[in-house]
Amino acid sequence: MSVDPKPLTEGILFTDQYQLTMAQLYWRQGLAEQEAQFEFFFRRYPDYGEHQAGYCVFAGLGELLSWMADTSFTPEDIELLRSQRSTAGAPRFEDAFLDWLWRYGSFDQLVVDAVPEGRIIHANAPAVMVRGPLAMAQVLETSLLNHLNYNTLIATKAARVSEATRGGIVLEFGMRRGPGFGANAGSHAALIGGADYSSNVALSHLYGLDPKGTHAHSMVQVFIALGMSELDAFRAYAETYPDDCILLVDTIDTLESGVPNAITIFEELREKGHEPRGIRLDSGDLAYLAIRAAAMLDEAGFTATSIVLSSELDELAIWQIHTQIAAEAPRYGIDVDALLGRLIYGVGTRLITSDGHSALGGVYKLVAIRGGSSWRAAIKISDSPEKMPVPGTKRLWRIYDQRGLATADVMSLEDEDLMGITELVIHDPHRSGVARTLTENDIGSIEELTKRVWQEGRRTSGRSDLDELRMRRDADLDRLDPGVRRLINPHVYHVSVTARLDELQRSLIAKA
Amino acid sequence: MSVDPKPLTEGILFTDQYQLTMAQLYWRQGLAEQEAQFEFFFRRYPDYGEHQAGYCVFAGLGELLSWMADTSFTPEDIELLRSQRSTAGAPRFEDAFLDWLWRYGSFDQLVVDAVPEGRIIHANAPAVMVRGPLAMAQVLETSLLNHLNYNTLIATKAARVSEATRGGIVLEFGMRRGPGFGANAGSHAALIGGADYSSNVALSHLYGLDPKGTHAHSMVQVFIALGMSELDAFRAYAETYPDDCILLVDTIDTLESGVPNAITIFEELREKGHEPRGIRLDSGDLAYLAIRAAAMLDEAGFTATSIVLSSELDELAIWQIHTQIAAEAPRYGIDVDALLGRLIYGVGTRLITSDGHSALGGVYKLVAIRGGSSWRAAIKISDSPEKMPVPGTKRLWRIYDQRGLATADVMSLEDEDLMGITELVIHDPHRSGVARTLTENDIGSIEELTKRVWQEGRRTSGRSDLDELRMRRDADLDRLDPGVRRLINPHVYHVSVTARLDELQRSLIAKA
Repeated sequence: MSVDPKPLTEGILFTDQYQLTMAQLYWRQGLAEQEAQFEFFFRRYPDYGEHQAGYCVFAGLGELLSWMADTSFTPEDIELLRSQRSTAGAPRFEDAFLDWLWRYGSFDQLVVDAVPEGRIIHANAPAVMVRGPLAMAQVLETSLLNHLNYNTLIATKAARVSEATRGGIVLEFGMRRGPGFGANAGSHAALIGGADYSSNVALSHLYGLDPKGTHAHSMVQVFIALGMSELDAFRAYAETYPDDCILLVDTIDTLESGVPNAITIFEELREKGHEPRGIRLDSGDLAYLAIRAAAMLDEAGFTATSIVLSSELDELAIWQIHTQIAAEAPRYGIDVDALLGRLIYGVGTRLITSDGHSALGGVYKLVAIRGGSSWRAAIKISDSPEKMPVPGTKRLWRIYDQRGLATADVMSLEDEDLMGITELVIHDPHRSGVARTLTENDIGSIEELTKRVWQEGRRTSGRSDLDELRMRRDADLDRLDPGVRRLINPHVYHVSVTARLDELQRSLIAKA
Repeated sequence: MSVDPKPLTEGILFTDQYQLTMAQLYWRQGLAEQEAQFEFFFRRYPDYGEHQAGYCVFAGLGELLSWMADTSFTPEDIELLRSQRSTAGAPRFEDAFLDWLWRYGSFDQLVVDAVPEGRIIHANAPAVMVRGPLAMAQVLETSLLNHLNYNTLIATKAARVSEATRGGIVLEFGMRRGPGFGANAGSHAALIGGADYSSNVALSHLYGLDPKGTHAHSMVQVFIALGMSELDAFRAYAETYPDDCILLVDTIDTLESGVPNAITIFEELREKGHEPRGIRLDSGDLAYLAIRAAAMLDEAGFTATSIVLSSELDELAIWQIHTQIAAEAPRYGIDVDALLGRLIYGVGTRLITSDGHSALGGVYKLVAIRGGSSWRAAIKISDSPEKMPVPGTKRLWRIYDQRGLATADVMSLEDEDLMGITELVIHDPHRSGVARTLTENDIGSIEELTKRVWQEGRRTSGRSDLDELRMRRDADLDRLDPGVRRLINPHVYHVSVTARLDELQRSLIAKA
């Protein structure tokens, strides 16, 4: 696979201006290399209006670490900054600062601990902890948030779509409505979160997947405009792709023309020893048409042929299609499970844009800074308690109950080790005095969630491949309470702090 | 500026798989080089739920043409396609087809006419017409839609935000919530549509703009955690940027701490001969805080200092802030216009994601194909008339009334020339029989909207710079009826067809 140099707009200047003006200020104050700790977390799960997420699938970390490994200030970057002028016409950035940036402006001194990509993460629990020199830890903010917010958003949406299909195959079709070349990140995040395949050719090859697709209405229109027919178009397609023949049947009339013509072609294929793959429905009442098409296919002996559904699908639309099929299929003599089992879902716009909730509001907050030999916890007082980040350097743990289901994510002070404990009082980080005691009966096992992922300018382990990320996702989903997984009004998962961390937070608030 | 080779995922395989499977089918059928015409248009303006767009700002064309100019099949692309296998294990793409693709698989034979980028475009009127060999005109679809849909969506949102500010300065701040590197396209589109500046450093430099930004809460937190104060942080900032000093005043308490401390620093600055630039409010009741902060700044003699507002802004939030200021400012002795005149708007998440309507549903439809020596109009019958593309090769005109305001966009047959006509019957393209006669009194002037933008493998004119695109936008906005521009429930702009095109459409529907 080719590795290309980054364009200017994807290098280290893919950042907000204020990161650089703050970096210069820190440098002038002698604080640029002061050790600081920042954390990435999001405050609220995506809420799509009619439906809401109860968990997120963490994605984008691999892309972020690749970006960090490949990125540092180039001579061109430095010269562009040197060209900036203040309102009064003076250089905005001093030469001595730019020299420092050229020498030390990389991510080599940062240490990053993170929840492994692909795992389930929850609101208010830090998924990434970045420690290192203040200036460069600050400069990392914009790109880190950009990568983690968008990828986690789309992976989460894909997980929901996949949940709604109850084990069906999901094809990601979103490029044409996707956000410029950000559509590549979107396709990839969808594949991490719940899509099985994508129509995105280059991206599929990059991750070793077969790109998926059938044909467009335009193909049938070409044949008709030239005096031929839908049947001719289908026949041409079947001749070209005899073993991958999926026909789009709604260009003229799905039940009157498309499905009968497809069946004719499928019979021709079978005579020649090829098994047809399926039909695609792209408009109309998809549940009704799927039932009727299934009946016609069954009648003609194509009982295993797939039915691909597309057209503004999302988790809610899929759920409604399932509900309608369950109610309506028996009236046509169609077995509900058999029909659901042959459905495939092409999901485009609403997946790649996370329709209904188009941004994850993840933030990157300073939690501590080294003053002399000790860490000083940083706190930001806010009118709304839920906007207050939990201060201090810390560790993140997941508690499983006796059944093996995750019951709470718990933040502790850095010197607390929860492994092996049998009783634990956990406090709500935002509602003072709200606590709960976990006894031996509540605690099946405990896991520390974050791992070291970056140190000394490189990843601390190889990049995870797609299969590995998907296995992590599935393992976590299996250990999630069904109430947290439900599509509408999910149960709120507990994210808590230990008594000592609660005490630190309260003392800092009192002091402020 | 550096020009870098494209990565695999931004080259010609940045496309949907079915474009390539259809291309091979056309090649096998001897249709790959048959001349075809496709059109790009969108069917519905963005509808954000509580509010709706009455027009779009066309953007993305320049990026698309650059992509077309730089993109053709590389040896690596061809080898990846050669590696694809059918379900039965046979090569999916024949060697002879791949040879053809290697030789002819570029956009050199296409001719593209388009509405100039930056101009106002309307639903159902073709903004781009692509003519050329069927296979490559089809392959272009995905990237064309990706570029034009996302950029037009964001440019349109930015235009609405700008309209809401009534002449205020808009800063684009969306990278951290933007869609991966697609955030660059988003920042650029925002600058075309209505944002004045961006915080995106690299992109701003690419377009010759000064990147904008102040500082984050974390900067104040660092000083406090190290035993210093908000005032110390502000002073350090003012010393570093004496002529660009904008201070974020809500880290502790806006009115009790932030604004008084800012005023102290502004007085110090002024004593040293520097004029402070402003404060930024990023939380709370922005309208109320702006009024109170303005009163405090006025009192201290800083009557011209800007007040930057940020925090989940969009056109509706800005409109509400204006409304609240108009009602509430006089009570505090603040002149409404003076206060509105000093506001600056930092708009992030809701702009770069087009919150509330996260995808423009633009489509790329076959409208005609050459059969022998003549064009055959292609039609797609649909249950919903508004989903039926207007068939045939055509031209697009804009009619202005005697006041110089645009009254209708009209599609005609290709051999119709509307220049200089004094009377015209225009038909609704989707409601048969609905027509309207424009007489001499209704017609002030007529303009053909599309220009040739691509021929013989290159742009037919230089790339427009940002100023040019913004001038086109402003000129079109000035000629738009205020009813079409209003933020909520806008008047529906007329998009029509001529009598002859209406006749063609009706005869084709009757035949089908």
